[in-house]
Amino acid sequence: MEVADRTGRKAVVLLSGGLDSATALAIAASEGYETHALSFRYGQRHELELDAAAEIAQAAGVNQHVVVDLDTRLFAGSALTDQIDVPKGRAAAAADGQIPVTYVPARNTVFLAYALAWAESLHTGDIFIGVTAVDYSGYPDCRPEYIEAFEAMANLATKAAVEGEHPVTIRTPLLRLSKAQIIERGTELGVDYSLTRSCYDPAPDGAACGVCDTCVLRLAGFAASGLKDPAPYQPEALPSR
Amino acid sequence: MEVADRTGRKAVVLLSGGLDSATALAIAASEGYETHALSFRYGQRHELELDAAAEIAQAAGVNQHVVVDLDTRLFAGSALTDQIDVPKGRAAAAADGQIPVTYVPARNTVFLAYALAWAESLHTGDIFIGVTAVDYSGYPDCRPEYIEAFEAMANLATKAAVEGEHPVTIRTPLLRLSKAQIIERGTELGVDYSLTRSCYDPAPDGAACGVCDTCVLRLAGFAASGLKDPAPYQPEALPSR
Repeated sequence: MEVADRTGRKAVVLLSGGLDSATALAIAASEGYETHALSFRYGQRHELELDAAAEIAQAAGVNQHVVVDLDTRLFAGSALTDQIDVPKGRAAAAADGQIPVTYVPARNTVFLAYALAWAESLHTGDIFIGVTAVDYSGYPDCRPEYIEAFEAMANLATKAAVEGEHPVTIRTPLLRLSKAQIIERGTELGVDYSLTRSCYDPAPDGAACGVCDTCVLRLAGFAASGLKDPAPYQPEALPSR
Repeated sequence: MEVADRTGRKAVVLLSGGLDSATALAIAASEGYETHALSFRYGQRHELELDAAAEIAQAAGVNQHVVVDLDTRLFAGSALTDQIDVPKGRAAAAADGQIPVTYVPARNTVFLAYALAWAESLHTGDIFIGVTAVDYSGYPDCRPEYIEAFEAMANLATKAAVEGEHPVTIRTPLLRLSKAQIIERGTELGVDYSLTRSCYDPAPDGAACGVCDTCVLRLAGFAASGLKDPAPYQPEALPSR
């Protein structure tokens, strides 16, 4: 596969601790970017994904990994942050065309806004986000039209873009890939998926539930790629595994 | 002046502690909105403007005032946050067509992103920001084309907008007003400008320098409106006053 050579350029990479963003980080690194990983603490029910993000960042050899605390008073109303039950299975989440209750208000806009500020401070305009519009949960701020609109706005927003120093590019290398293709690409690049955590509702020891929307997508992706998911699952959740 | 009646609707209002945002807040309240004021601590050199924001919010009878701490590691490179000298006078700042060193990376994008999240949590899409494109400092993220691009992006970003519950409207009631017109409008609405702080480089007691870009704009606005600025200034800065 042909890879652009970005050696010496910096990129800010949004890193959640999940499978997708770990792969996006590996792709940025494979192009030669000096990577600056950015994670957020926003009242997620568990800190496991931030521990995972730190391990993934270290394994990927990032230049820097910053975890930003968001003000959780402003993000009420999501099953990821509040005491709302996480639905089980795809049928309960996206299959009826509704945006699921795991949606967090304006989350990717806040994440990308911080990334934009940091990128400008680092004298770059290149930002990676691991959104995908194929096997995804139906969040509006993962769609290509949203990403294009953010990029257009960002190029009017910053001094560096307006003065022509660093136009802003929101890089979405996973946007058109299926979950299986993402896993295959990351495996080629040496991503250790045992470090990644996707589950919305893990056990206290970190074992994934196997039945929430993101577990279902992840497991189907591994199954389709013919690879085995090395992450820990609760044994009772996957009796046939 | 005819005023839309928004009684019972909620609005998030960005409130800096300066003259413009205090006026924008008064305009929102005059339309009947239940106002939710939002301020940020982002490594400003002084906390005076946040004290001022709290007093302005109280005087305006807001429903709620939240101050969010931003992660200052991501906002390097501005004279407002770093040990860079604040230029004196308009000639040193915007008059040569350059964006001044008081620009803070992606500041309004981060502010509006938080406002967007909070608005959605509050079940509204109405956000007020006191930007003006007439007597302003040349920041790219105060221009109408930037605001329009943010609004377009926001309407693709949130669940409430995409599902038609609350489209996002970025209200900019000061956009086409001169500084004098802003002051006249706020005075009509009873804004107490003695509470507002605009100076980039005030004395420890809060007295404004009278010579930085924002002081020069403010003083010219009061002069043009024929009103006296009730805010405190350093006496040596204004020998003729």
